[in-house]
Amino acid sequence: MAKDRVYLFDTTLRDGAQTQGVDFSVEDKRIIAKALDKLGVAYIEGGWPGANPIDTEFFAEKPALKRAKFVAFGMTKRPGRSAANDPGLAQILGASADAACLVGKSWDFQVEVALGITNAENVELIYDSIAATHAKFGEAMYDAEHFFDGYKANPDYATQCVKAALDAGARWAVLCDTNGGALPHEVERIVGELAAKLGDASRLGIHTHNDTENAVANTLAAVKAGVRQVQGTLNGLGERCGNANLISLIPSLMLKPWFRDHVDVGLSEQELTQLTATSRVLDELLNRAPNRHAAYVGASAFAHKGGLHVSAVMKDPRTYEHVPPESVGNTRQILISDQAGRSNLLVRLTEAGIPFNPEDSRLNLLLDEVKQREAEGYSYDGAEASFEVLARRKLGLMPDFFQVRSFRVMVERRYNARGELVTMSEATVKLNVDGELVFSVAEGNGPVNALDHALRKDLGRYQGYIDDLRLVDFKVRILNGGTEATTRVMIESADGQGNRWFTVGVSPNIIDAAFSALMDSVEWKLLRDGAAPSKRPAK
Amino acid sequence: MAKDRVYLFDTTLRDGAQTQGVDFSVEDKRIIAKALDKLGVAYIEGGWPGANPIDTEFFAEKPALKRAKFVAFGMTKRPGRSAANDPGLAQILGASADAACLVGKSWDFQVEVALGITNAENVELIYDSIAATHAKFGEAMYDAEHFFDGYKANPDYATQCVKAALDAGARWAVLCDTNGGALPHEVERIVGELAAKLGDASRLGIHTHNDTENAVANTLAAVKAGVRQVQGTLNGLGERCGNANLISLIPSLMLKPWFRDHVDVGLSEQELTQLTATSRVLDELLNRAPNRHAAYVGASAFAHKGGLHVSAVMKDPRTYEHVPPESVGNTRQILISDQAGRSNLLVRLTEAGIPFNPEDSRLNLLLDEVKQREAEGYSYDGAEASFEVLARRKLGLMPDFFQVRSFRVMVERRYNARGELVTMSEATVKLNVDGELVFSVAEGNGPVNALDHALRKDLGRYQGYIDDLRLVDFKVRILNGGTEATTRVMIESADGQGNRWFTVGVSPNIIDAAFSALMDSVEWKLLRDGAAPSKRPAK
Repeated sequence: MAKDRVYLFDTTLRDGAQTQGVDFSVEDKRIIAKALDKLGVAYIEGGWPGANPIDTEFFAEKPALKRAKFVAFGMTKRPGRSAANDPGLAQILGASADAACLVGKSWDFQVEVALGITNAENVELIYDSIAATHAKFGEAMYDAEHFFDGYKANPDYATQCVKAALDAGARWAVLCDTNGGALPHEVERIVGELAAKLGDASRLGIHTHNDTENAVANTLAAVKAGVRQVQGTLNGLGERCGNANLISLIPSLMLKPWFRDHVDVGLSEQELTQLTATSRVLDELLNRAPNRHAAYVGASAFAHKGGLHVSAVMKDPRTYEHVPPESVGNTRQILISDQAGRSNLLVRLTEAGIPFNPEDSRLNLLLDEVKQREAEGYSYDGAEASFEVLARRKLGLMPDFFQVRSFRVMVERRYNARGELVTMSEATVKLNVDGELVFSVAEGNGPVNALDHALRKDLGRYQGYIDDLRLVDFKVRILNGGTEATTRVMIESADGQGNRWFTVGVSPNIIDAAFSALMDSVEWKLLRDGAAPSKRPAK
Repeated sequence: MAKDRVYLFDTTLRDGAQTQGVDFSVEDKRIIAKALDKLGVAYIEGGWPGANPIDTEFFAEKPALKRAKFVAFGMTKRPGRSAANDPGLAQILGASADAACLVGKSWDFQVEVALGITNAENVELIYDSIAATHAKFGEAMYDAEHFFDGYKANPDYATQCVKAALDAGARWAVLCDTNGGALPHEVERIVGELAAKLGDASRLGIHTHNDTENAVANTLAAVKAGVRQVQGTLNGLGERCGNANLISLIPSLMLKPWFRDHVDVGLSEQELTQLTATSRVLDELLNRAPNRHAAYVGASAFAHKGGLHVSAVMKDPRTYEHVPPESVGNTRQILISDQAGRSNLLVRLTEAGIPFNPEDSRLNLLLDEVKQREAEGYSYDGAEASFEVLARRKLGLMPDFFQVRSFRVMVERRYNARGELVTMSEATVKLNVDGELVFSVAEGNGPVNALDHALRKDLGRYQGYIDDLRLVDFKVRILNGGTEATTRVMIESADGQGNRWFTVGVSPNIIDAAFSALMDSVEWKLLRDGAAPSKRPAK
């Protein structure tokens, strides 16, 4: 059976950016666009050029994408102006993009309350704006705002708005459940009726919100009823309760009965295995703890607790798993088995290139240490350099370079001689290098920065190895509530050859946690570059 | 039109207790059962007596419930024993409960792989176990494990299992999507077929999991197809990706087209307004931050950003709200953001109860200040108390309480006299209270904790106002890379009356950022509690 192509349209960078507390930088947008392109979506909506300085800058130059089309978002022109004379529309038409998507009204109530114009005038706005966009890009889309509410109130008028866009040349008319209040049985009925009226649903798309926890189901209902474009965001990001979650939709469209046999979303099975990693890219950027319970990609999505379930899964995973975890790049988690822990450890050592003898009893000590530290809040997933330093130390494979005898950090806020309120940070570090004590003191614009400067100011004969070391990112996560909480600091370091590595530190004291991660970073660099060990044993 | 009664069955205390990291005490279970009873569910499944000491204790005495029936969970008897001689079943039959629910197989593959018995033997197990349970309680239920997978593999056999339970006297046969892999169109078809075979769906229930993000939609599809019992948990708690979320289901069943007209879940409109509070009870017990984006009850569920949306909502909330927030005990939230205009600001001031004259030129200064701060990294979305302190200060409505002249924080890591590596944090704060200088010094387990202790150690005559102030959460976000990055600290505070408020601070220096947020928190508390202003003007 020939499958119909369904086009995935990602709006993380536009509708997702409306989320409370989310503000993407231009660099964030570039990183996310790259991850989406690699995953294999068909369209990436980058933002609204002209609406804010970041989106305008992002659309000054198209990001380098291999497959995905880059889409600018905007609004239909204002009443009383020609499309050619509308400054908002001009910003969209001037953007560096492959296509543009314009939102417009399709609910008569909104035309009256929000625009204050006649129904006929609104239809004209849609037609003219889409025609101008089609002329410019060759690919125009119309987001029919409030389509489902509009259709319930006045089906003829909502249909007329969609027709106007299609008649003006729109490649896509996207049916938006803007308020998120529609239920799947309504979406199925309304899309079915509209498709019958148009005689064809192949230019229709769907855009849903999660206000009743049905965004994914509403999207699936629309695809079953014939729409061929699916809009959504990574991890369901979006204002209020979020948009339809592409991370949940993609595997259901690819793996589940009916959809598997009838539609093709343009991703290979191999690309689907990147799903979990793609979901994590966004969480990392937002410095959010990934949702353990997320469908398909959550850390708990394939976790089995002791007893009957585990023994059944061991006999045949289909007993308690609806799809194989590896199909979406996730892993099974058996919450009781030490055996799994040990085999996992050996895989990680091999991956890090650390030689070991499987009979070595120190492997058990290392496993205990890793478990102990993970219980305290360490996370070695994504902090491979810290794992390597720890593993080598426990296995007797880590050279001693230098020792930190003590450090002190001071932050002071006071009025200076000119009566201005200033804050200064100063750090002192005392090191033992080859048996000689070395003191360093430095300032910084914060306590961790000062400590970093002081630690790396004078490392004696090791100085040459770390001159090109830079800290490129620094993330803090509080693991439980209050200022007495445990703090986890993750540091990303880079050097002059373009290498990047990640380290982690955990402590109730944020300075202590940061210092541990800094030390791991420096020691890993010395190890990697083959610096000679200390000439005198550590005291 | 007469409505059909749909019975709500809560399994937070049984299936929800399977969640990774969740372990309820007996007291927790009592608190949750009470909240569920008050909300108005029909059944509360309390746990599995005999499976662990907590559940056994919880079932030793029925909790005092006004309306809900208290249900014990267990498993059908083992093969090769009579119902009367099965020790597991005996524990269930001996429990203090109004009804019992027994899980049993209905998928032939599971009967073979997990039980290793014949299909006929399994049907006998179900019949005998349910008959014994019905005899004891007068109300027995059968959870048909893996019903949908079983029906897809062997519809006749799955149907036979359900029939055996109903024939043995079960009030309910509950169709379980145990692996969470079914999609709504499958649930609709399968429930429809089963109902046709049985000639009646009024003794069927539905139990779904969220492994494809369709648990809510699958439940709605089953209700539309005729089932009359709905199982789920508060906030969708449950193993892997969680169970169907009752908090999302209840309002959709009560407020949405078709369901509103055809079914009655037994809650009044008044009881529905407790929904948001009931959701928070569970988060409080689990010490979890409530999900801001939860359908209906999330803090962001009725939050509006961006100028156009806000002005439309002010004209008529139906423009961007699918139900009135107050119907589920939630509230509308108007967000301040960099895209926001003057109209957002005025709405926000009104909501915060800050009086203003629309002609006041200081409003423009405040708007500029908010924009400037948001460009620096401040985010007043979700930091309402900091917004209020800033707005009142700019509008001349913020009393001067005390002034911080200076502070100093020191963190030191060194070897103590016993040769152990220790880290200590100490903070000094110099305040001006009513023209008198007050010095305080305190230690803490980290620099922010020490600063918090020192700031609140001696506030002179204001001390009484802050004795019950607690910091309940502390979040750090690094806004751009490296240790020289800008840091945003968000603090959640609480007091003895159960109030919670949020403040924010931004600085390149993390200590400085935390201090600003702490100061806002203290000043907001003094303002709210009506503390008298400073007796001498600020220097």
